[in-house]
Amino acid sequence: MQGLPGFRDFLPKECAARNYIFDKWREVARRYGFVEWEGPVLESTELYKKKSGDEIVGQLFSFTDKGEREVALRPELTPTLARVIAAHEREFKKPLKWFSIGPFFRYEKQQRGRLREHFQLNCDIVGEADANADVELVALCVDILRGFGFTEKDFVVRISDREFWTDFLREQKVPAERWEEILHAIDKSEREPREKTIEKLGRLAEPVLSILNKGGKSEKLEWLVDGLRVRGLAGFVDVDVRIVRGLAYYTGMVFEVFDRAGKLRAVAGGGRYDSLIEQLSEGAVKMPALGFAMGDVVLGELIGEHPAARAQMEAAMRDQRKIDIYVVIAKEERRADALAQIQQLRENGYRVDYPLAPAKVGKQFQTAEDLGATVALLYGDEWPNVKVKTLATREEGLIAQDQLLSQIAEIFSRSS
Amino acid sequence: MQGLPGFRDFLPKECAARNYIFDKWREVARRYGFVEWEGPVLESTELYKKKSGDEIVGQLFSFTDKGEREVALRPELTPTLARVIAAHEREFKKPLKWFSIGPFFRYEKQQRGRLREHFQLNCDIVGEADANADVELVALCVDILRGFGFTEKDFVVRISDREFWTDFLREQKVPAERWEEILHAIDKSEREPREKTIEKLGRLAEPVLSILNKGGKSEKLEWLVDGLRVRGLAGFVDVDVRIVRGLAYYTGMVFEVFDRAGKLRAVAGGGRYDSLIEQLSEGAVKMPALGFAMGDVVLGELIGEHPAARAQMEAAMRDQRKIDIYVVIAKEERRADALAQIQQLRENGYRVDYPLAPAKVGKQFQTAEDLGATVALLYGDEWPNVKVKTLATREEGLIAQDQLLSQIAEIFSRSS
Repeated sequence: MQGLPGFRDFLPKECAARNYIFDKWREVARRYGFVEWEGPVLESTELYKKKSGDEIVGQLFSFTDKGEREVALRPELTPTLARVIAAHEREFKKPLKWFSIGPFFRYEKQQRGRLREHFQLNCDIVGEADANADVELVALCVDILRGFGFTEKDFVVRISDREFWTDFLREQKVPAERWEEILHAIDKSEREPREKTIEKLGRLAEPVLSILNKGGKSEKLEWLVDGLRVRGLAGFVDVDVRIVRGLAYYTGMVFEVFDRAGKLRAVAGGGRYDSLIEQLSEGAVKMPALGFAMGDVVLGELIGEHPAARAQMEAAMRDQRKIDIYVVIAKEERRADALAQIQQLRENGYRVDYPLAPAKVGKQFQTAEDLGATVALLYGDEWPNVKVKTLATREEGLIAQDQLLSQIAEIFSRSS
Repeated sequence: MQGLPGFRDFLPKECAARNYIFDKWREVARRYGFVEWEGPVLESTELYKKKSGDEIVGQLFSFTDKGEREVALRPELTPTLARVIAAHEREFKKPLKWFSIGPFFRYEKQQRGRLREHFQLNCDIVGEADANADVELVALCVDILRGFGFTEKDFVVRISDREFWTDFLREQKVPAERWEEILHAIDKSEREPREKTIEKLGRLAEPVLSILNKGGKSEKLEWLVDGLRVRGLAGFVDVDVRIVRGLAYYTGMVFEVFDRAGKLRAVAGGGRYDSLIEQLSEGAVKMPALGFAMGDVVLGELIGEHPAARAQMEAAMRDQRKIDIYVVIAKEERRADALAQIQQLRENGYRVDYPLAPAKVGKQFQTAEDLGATVALLYGDEWPNVKVKTLATREEGLIAQDQLLSQIAEIFSRSS
């Protein structure tokens, strides 16, 4: 029996790496005053058909359930957020700053950085039209990546504005029903042969390519970069109107984050989607909103290629999995005494392990080392004393059984 | 648009409650030396058909994917664990003590304590036949519930042994192919009319009912209870041979945890499944194993009904969501100065929020209170000084801008 293609088994090491990413996401989002929420992994397919554009619907992990409902494993969180906000908005003061961490799914060919199941952080600000919210969101995205140990040499936020392009299309008198198609062609232009882009753009090819070559000027984007400069974060951002984002629902500022070396897919992306909640609620709730998502797969690759980021992750992984105390049971007659004390130590918050079946003392000490224990306690001939060994320094001593907790507390306060 | 029946939206409050449960599960499991892993939420349907018994297959959330694979949203973790162990067992020293936290699915009618998506903690010990492992597992389950604030007055572990019944069936000369059916009838006997159980048991009705009435004697179970007594946990456990567990793969000790009042469904359940890994690997890997699962839904109900457990949860929920510092921007000209300092405070680990759009000072202080801030900082006429107000005590003071970090550190060291 094998797992399904594109789905991962997280063995303890991989799970510790994943937890490290989740913990860091959570920590930095909370420093920014974001609170956590979460939606279900399964939704009505209709929710995605309504607003996400064709590409995502074609990749949906969708099926008919036993109650004849058309359902889909969620490919992204934003439609769920819009649904939840439309249903509950009266319960909360605006603006909301919400984040969420969970699994997402798409049915597509596996390739580097793209799996069928992956995890995403989503951060959204709902109910705030002021452009200060745009700065806050981009700053959060930057500071999350800085939290992993990356600097402005390692990644760049390419920031753009859909209104820059819609203003242009209006000027060029392009009918609104063609905008989506043209924005899509601009979005793809970096990844497609130039001839193909020219063909798609038709009479707009010349002015659009001229903008893409020279770069576009945007007061609004300059203002956003100034807002980041105040925070010391301007060096992480490039204004770049080539960024449009594939999803149909973006209405204003959009951004994508890439490794500076340009070797990997986007680490994160997002933008403003001021009309989505109104559309999904069929006009019942009008609410400006913006957000971004960051996936675990490309981020994991970026960490893996960066020695300092990798070392920071590995230290956190060791901390997650290591135990504090390994109890060596040298004489089986002492097992019950040892277990009574193991119970006490665990109740005092120590991570404690011991052999479940009789084993040689040497092998038990080896296990203590393997598990990364700080201290080994030996229950044997010394009873009612316990032999204690600090594994890093090889220091040994004897502790009277009724002194165990206080002596252990002292050893740990010294070693930390 | 609505969410699907049996699936939950976790708004910030519900998400904080869920995180509290996850954090406690993780903390206690780690004190017991368990390390975290995780499998995918989608598996081949075949994996469940092979070994889980009919009931669970009938409730599967299963479908055919776009690649014509029969797949299912996982209803339980044990088959995935067996698959993963069979594939990777050589990479690890035994015994393994592994835990996992994630979503599980079943397609059934919604009722109290039963949803279509729920979350489970799974704890398993793999590669250890010694009955000390059985004691360790039950002790962990007890200590997790104690971690939530419950005592032996609140819940009971009803512990039993499938071998007690299979020994009995062997004695009674019942052919092995009928065992599963009879164990199932015994499992159901508490929840069905007596006549129905008698009908199902046939000639075995009399001896089985006599055992169920008097209680069964088992040296092995007495030994397990003694092992818990050494740890001070015997009061949490009742030997009770009425417990059999519905799943086909259990081979030895089994247990279920209930509220003492007997009002709710089982909070947790598990046992030994020494043959499952061998069966799933078609004989390639023989490995004794045991484990239990605890769901979030019934546990949440139990916490909700217990004032002390509930108070403990609510305090943790507040801690998760509260911010440290709210920055009041009294003059818009000071916004840039405030943001430069907000950035510094966040970089020093404080949770900081502020108004994204201009707002009245009184409203900003109200938001500071609503968000549970410890301190409010006011940027206005006092600049280059900052006004600081400790919200609980209403104490106010002035801080020079270049003293901010050290003064804030002092305030927080005093208030914690």
